[in-house]
Amino acid sequence: MKNHSAAVIGLGYWGPNVLRNVIDVDKFDDIYCHDLDISKIDKCKRRFTSIKPVSSYENILNNDDINCVFICTPLSTHYQLAKDALLNGKNVLIEKPMTSTVEEAKELIDISNKKSLKLMVGHTFEFSPPVEKIKEIIQNGMLGDIYFISMTRINLGIHRKDVSVIGDLATHDLSILFRLIEEEPYSISAVSNSFVKNKLKDVAFINLRYKSGTIVNINVSWLSPKKIRETIIVGSKKMLIYDDTKSDEKIKIFDRGVDVLKDPDSFGEYQLTYRTGDIISPVLEATEPLKIEISHFIDCVNNGLKPKTDGYCGLKVVRFLEAAEKSSDRGGEVIIINGAK
Amino acid sequence: MKNHSAAVIGLGYWGPNVLRNVIDVDKFDDIYCHDLDISKIDKCKRRFTSIKPVSSYENILNNDDINCVFICTPLSTHYQLAKDALLNGKNVLIEKPMTSTVEEAKELIDISNKKSLKLMVGHTFEFSPPVEKIKEIIQNGMLGDIYFISMTRINLGIHRKDVSVIGDLATHDLSILFRLIEEEPYSISAVSNSFVKNKLKDVAFINLRYKSGTIVNINVSWLSPKKIRETIIVGSKKMLIYDDTKSDEKIKIFDRGVDVLKDPDSFGEYQLTYRTGDIISPVLEATEPLKIEISHFIDCVNNGLKPKTDGYCGLKVVRFLEAAEKSSDRGGEVIIINGAK
Amino acid sequence: MKNHSAAVIGLGYWGPNVLRNVIDVDKFDDIYCHDLDISKIDKCKRRFTSIKPVSSYENILNNDDINCVFICTPLSTHYQLAKDALLNGKNVLIEKPMTSTVEEAKELIDISNKKSLKLMVGHTFEFSPPVEKIKEIIQNGMLGDIYFISMTRINLGIHRKDVSVIGDLATHDLSILFRLIEEEPYSISAVSNSFVKNKLKDVAFINLRYKSGTIVNINVSWLSPKKIRETIIVGSKKMLIYDDTKSDEKIKIFDRGVDVLKDPDSFGEYQLTYRTGDIISPVLEATEPLKIEISHFIDCVNNGLKPKTDGYCGLKVVRFLEAAEKSSDRGGEVIIINGAK
Amino acid sequence: MKNHSAAVIGLGYWGPNVLRNVIDVDKFDDIYCHDLDISKIDKCKRRFTSIKPVSSYENILNNDDINCVFICTPLSTHYQLAKDALLNGKNVLIEKPMTSTVEEAKELIDISNKKSLKLMVGHTFEFSPPVEKIKEIIQNGMLGDIYFISMTRINLGIHRKDVSVIGDLATHDLSILFRLIEEEPYSISAVSNSFVKNKLKDVAFINLRYKSGTIVNINVSWLSPKKIRETIIVGSKKMLIYDDTKSDEKIKIFDRGVDVLKDPDSFGEYQLTYRTGDIISPVLEATEPLKIEISHFIDCVNNGLKPKTDGYCGLKVVRFLEAAEKSSDRGGEVIIINGAK
Repeated sequence: MKNHSAAVIGLGYWGPNVLRNVIDVDKFDDIYCHDLDISKIDKCKRRFTSIKPVSSYENILNNDDINCVFICTPLSTHYQLAKDALLNGKNVLIEKPMTSTVEEAKELIDISNKKSLKLMVGHTFEFSPPVEKIKEIIQNGMLGDIYFISMTRINLGIHRKDVSVIGDLATHDLSILFRLIEEEPYSISAVSNSFVKNKLKDVAFINLRYKSGTIVNINVSWLSPKKIRETIIVGSKKMLIYDDTKSDEKIKIFDRGVDVLKDPDSFGEYQLTYRTGDIISPVLEATEPLKIEISHFIDCVNNGLKPKTDGYCGLKVVRFLEAAEKSSDRGGEVIIINGAK
Repeated sequence: MKNHSAAVIGLGYWGPNVLRNVIDVDKFDDIYCHDLDISKIDKCKRRFTSIKPVSSYENILNNDDINCVFICTPLSTHYQLAKDALLNGKNVLIEKPMTSTVEEAKELIDISNKKSLKLMVGHTFEFSPPVEKIKEIIQNGMLGDIYFISMTRINLGIHRKDVSVIGDLATHDLSILFRLIEEEPYSISAVSNSFVKNKLKDVAFINLRYKSGTIVNINVSWLSPKKIRETIIVGSKKMLIYDDTKSDEKIKIFDRGVDVLKDPDSFGEYQLTYRTGDIISPVLEATEPLKIEISHFIDCVNNGLKPKTDGYCGLKVVRFLEAAEKSSDRGGEVIIINGAK
Repeated sequence: MKNHSAAVIGLGYWGPNVLRNVIDVDKFDDIYCHDLDISKIDKCKRRFTSIKPVSSYENILNNDDINCVFICTPLSTHYQLAKDALLNGKNVLIEKPMTSTVEEAKELIDISNKKSLKLMVGHTFEFSPPVEKIKEIIQNGMLGDIYFISMTRINLGIHRKDVSVIGDLATHDLSILFRLIEEEPYSISAVSNSFVKNKLKDVAFINLRYKSGTIVNINVSWLSPKKIRETIIVGSKKMLIYDDTKSDEKIKIFDRGVDVLKDPDSFGEYQLTYRTGDIISPVLEATEPLKIEISHFIDCVNNGLKPKTDGYCGLKVVRFLEAAEKSSDRGGEVIIINGAK
Repeated sequence: MKNHSAAVIGLGYWGPNVLRNVIDVDKFDDIYCHDLDISKIDKCKRRFTSIKPVSSYENILNNDDINCVFICTPLSTHYQLAKDALLNGKNVLIEKPMTSTVEEAKELIDISNKKSLKLMVGHTFEFSPPVEKIKEIIQNGMLGDIYFISMTRINLGIHRKDVSVIGDLATHDLSILFRLIEEEPYSISAVSNSFVKNKLKDVAFINLRYKSGTIVNINVSWLSPKKIRETIIVGSKKMLIYDDTKSDEKIKIFDRGVDVLKDPDSFGEYQLTYRTGDIISPVLEATEPLKIEISHFIDCVNNGLKPKTDGYCGLKVVRFLEAAEKSSDRGGEVIIINGAK
């Protein structure tokens, strides 16, 4: 028995993917759709004949059958749409980044807490099999202490109109990073620029530092001759490369490192030995991350669980995005993060 | 007719390569060699039977036949050895980085100027066919305005004992960068750390900003699961990738970019079009860069020419290395460069 | 004004792709579909709501509105279905390989000729932008004389039940080869085996020889650790690699070769010089080959043109497939092709 | 205490490498060298000052101190030089291929047997760490039954004047193949041609069949746009790729395959399941194969052991080379091998 209905708001670039998966998981009586652009609804209706188009957001808010709202609209509208949905008793899954500002994110969290509703952010990569596998590898201690992480996410296009390359692409890397490393970075700095004339930064080099010593470099761009989706993680025991553009061998674990040999005869001198061992590429499940994410959200709603990428995850990313924008507006100034949740 | 002799000082890692090329260019009567470690001289003598080992640097300084001294010793000794050579009337080619400090570099330049001797630094990559080709491509305007450059030089090992990864590896990228782009960056920032216990930084993420808007990211490390030697240059017209690990296709020029179309009906709105055209990999000469460098130095000495990588080039790199070290010691603080030559 | 209707027969693996494109080109009043397996029709009906399911092939044959029949059924049924369609006045596009035997192919050609109907075979690769580009490159003489071609088409799976790996995969390579080189090979030999227990060969090494001296190697397999789709073409002037697995740089043209220098002093002695020049990867259109193929078929039907991949093309491939099977059944015996059309 | 001396005959392309290793293993009192071209001896003498040039082969044959002769001359001279050496009581290591004909190979084996001297052929790849590792993997049963092997060894140049591409390159693949698979193939066929005007075949496609069902494809060429050194081995349990051009990951083992599920309800029907598991790249020793080979030869001489690549190994390769040449001269005719040793 199905008990509830869902609504998908925003059918532009990403919304149809969300819609397809909401249909596929087959947990709702009805699926309502809304977009200010009628032609986008029509296009979806042709493909997904069962959906119910709705001409105003009001109708969704007032429909008591709907208990889940999926917000896939431009960033600037996330806050208001989500707030209205929560205030009308709906559980909400918002696309990333969750909100434009830290204040907005905090307010959404507050409302959802007061009303005991689920608030989740669509950090899709946190549900992807390779990121899950890397998380497991790090938690097992296989890599040892994490020395540094270098993340590159560059390609030609697509310049977005409502969000800079930091909000668009670095959001992915930050959410992956925060999934992998529990410690919170204490400073961020970013150098960036806007070359194509739309005032939104299209290239950024971001650095993060951790109290534990770990350092992270994130390189994002909409201007690149080739598509790169690469994360290099160097630990004290092993090293790992995650290349998301590969169909095969997305993850490679290298049994490589440097061992420090103390030389007792030499008053504090040491010797370094480089170690090179096997390379292993673990098999990964092929499930679509977005399907896992949407199933998880519905599971949280139906069974009262805490979402893996809850409002606090969304807030944390927004806080670092805000700081990265601020740093790059100040020419790369180091911004210390006051990480009180 | 050969008129002069040469001396190669320091026969550790790089010195034997210099020696081999000094022998091969065949421009000297005699080639003297010196190293504090006798076993290193012996090893070279076995391979290069014609060389003349010298047991003290004094002997080289006092030998009037010698007009060229090649200094391949650890960084901390560069200044004193070069100064002594210059004061004794020798032309000097010093390995990179030229000196430990800006002050030392300036003093060597002064002495060489006063004594009308050639002072050159061994920025070998500036003599390499791919870098020369890229310089030509940029000067021809083929790439258009340079938006950003992303440089990666990472591999496992070799930790050096006298210089951090910044002085060791970023020296290459800075000297290449300064060859390619004449404008001087006006700020630098660096985040780095020392993970293997020798107090010398073994990973660094360096950012540079130019007044013209160009931004540069340099990623160097002695700790990496794979060897990467990649420079991505994105211009307003075309884009280029230089991968020095490839035997073939070291340079690829991508006829790719974004064109901005003004839409007259839309009050300042614009449209972006992504362009994808042919990819060309130009053929490159196969000459060893070090051979070109050494021939060039001798040519400058013999014919009174200005070395392509003269003391000012060496000084410029040292100035940015010093600033990068300072920035990373201050947690990534932005250092403004006062670029008076 | 649309005048006619179409029918798509067989909705298994490939049929839905044909159907999607037949719908997309939007040239028919109605599109009828038939499959012996009702569940396959239902699945397509859900996705493509406008199609008209038909429960028997008779109904299609007797429907005078239908002038185009697309046959996407298993190989063993091609001949009878196509023959019935032609005899009922329909133009026919048959999936590759066209028929199981040379005799069947000849008969279909005869009928289509007598009835002035179009008979075309779905050699999709002959419509793909990279193959078209290579054809143009060869015709321009850019490669010079073609010395040899080496084609590899291997991957893990999918074992088919009605056709060996020769009929399944080598069909593609033969049709590409015959498009690129007009001369007909005069001999073929093949070594193959069936390792997974279904009696259909799952690996084959095929060699072809031309009177002009050109030789060709085709390597096909359903058993391979990685997917390879590579064709290497070596000519007297330049060389070319076509890698269909790449999203970028599917074609690379290498300005490489060997030049023979006659040495006048040495009584017939010669010297070889290896030439290495630029590598160029031409930009390619991104159109789906199947869409081009289907548009072309409809264009031929509507405007009385000769199909690019007509019955004779289909027959030629079937003749070589038959010979390859025969050769491999005889342990690799060389089969001379009597190429009378 | 060293007891004996060695002689290296032929200092062209490969001889200096042999000489360098004969010097490095440091097991001989004196190392004599001979080449008909004095300039080649002079060149070696400059680099390896300790060697003793000898102006005639007679002197080597008559020198009783010499117990090991390394023959690195053109193929056509192997037989006579080796025969003379054996008849004069020397142990002999001959470069591959061992002789021009099967008859010559048999005679050398006979003489060495009668005189109890070591006769070894320089199949260097059989001593290389990746080939040793693959041999171990196959012997452990990790790959299961070997279905097929596909070997590619192509590059641009170097056309040799005394041996076709079959004798030059396929020798490597045959010797590797015979090391990996003990069973002897029972037939061979080859299609080849000579495109550059020296009458020696410069491209060949070779097929081998085994009684057990295994089939092998060897693709060799001196004319290729890129260098490929790849062997794909597909077994019933796992698959393996050996790419000798890589510095890293020369061997990859893929836990992939097809499992056949018998369906009890369906009268002999079966179902196939494709399996995809981890990929492992085992670490390999970095020792130079030629050093291992030469040490092994000396070890066999000094300690009375049977060489791993003895005369029978050399003969076996020569027998298949002869058959491959014969097959390709007959247009690809299948040659049945009568494998009596």
